[in-house]
Amino acid sequence: MPDSVDPSALTYDAQGLIVAIVQDVDTRDVVMVAYMNQDTVRRTLETGQAVFWSRSRQEVWHKGATSGDYIEVHSLAADCDSDALVLQGRLLGSGVCHTGSRSCFVDVEDGETRLVGASA
Amino acid sequence: MPDSVDPSALTYDAQGLIVAIVQDVDTRDVVMVAYMNQDTVRRTLETGQAVFWSRSRQEVWHKGATSGDYIEVHSLAADCDSDALVLQGRLLGSGVCHTGSRSCFVDVEDGETRLVGASA
Repeated sequence: MPDSVDPSALTYDAQGLIVAIVQDVDTRDVVMVAYMNQDTVRRTLETGQAVFWSRSRQEVWHKGATSGDYIEVHSLAADCDSDALVLQGRLLGSGVCHTGSRSCFVDVEDGETRLVGASA
Repeated sequence: MPDSVDPSALTYDAQGLIVAIVQDVDTRDVVMVAYMNQDTVRRTLETGQAVFWSRSRQEVWHKGATSGDYIEVHSLAADCDSDALVLQGRLLGSGVCHTGSRSCFVDVEDGETRLVGASA
């Protein structure tokens, strides 16, 4: 069992933030991208639920606190230079996107992944 | 078939960048997080290989051009507010991480995911 990374050892940007990618532990889809600061990384670990920092509202954002769409944390991992996180979690509600879609990368109206260009 | 998103319609930050999450299309692991600008989004689509903008070197970074570890693009998707990308791709070389690991989230020495705190 390797040592785990302490939240204080992560690399935060000039705004004190680190990008957090949410991966649905059941489907393994990447479902959203948000940001955390050191405080909300700690809250995420303490509560076992995803807690972000809202850049638009400039406040702590306990995902699901108003919508019921909590994300139950299964693991939180850092990358090689400690400036990105992958949160693997279970989506307890109907989905994570403010549009009503299960994933921020899937259009709620046509149910299709929102592809860029003609790469697919 | 829904319309695709044009690179010029994406939302870039104050530095002209958008975060790009790379997911291994075979294992479905999230393997790295990097950044693109509008030019490298276009180059990624045109070449079918991941092309990033290196924030540390401030230059175009055609992943694999020096290492051979190209990422073959299978799809590139944008999120609901067009400020994050998921690139699903095939890792053509030995991996994506500068440490020699297949994934930036896996420690090359012990082969374990680099967990934060005690969340797992």
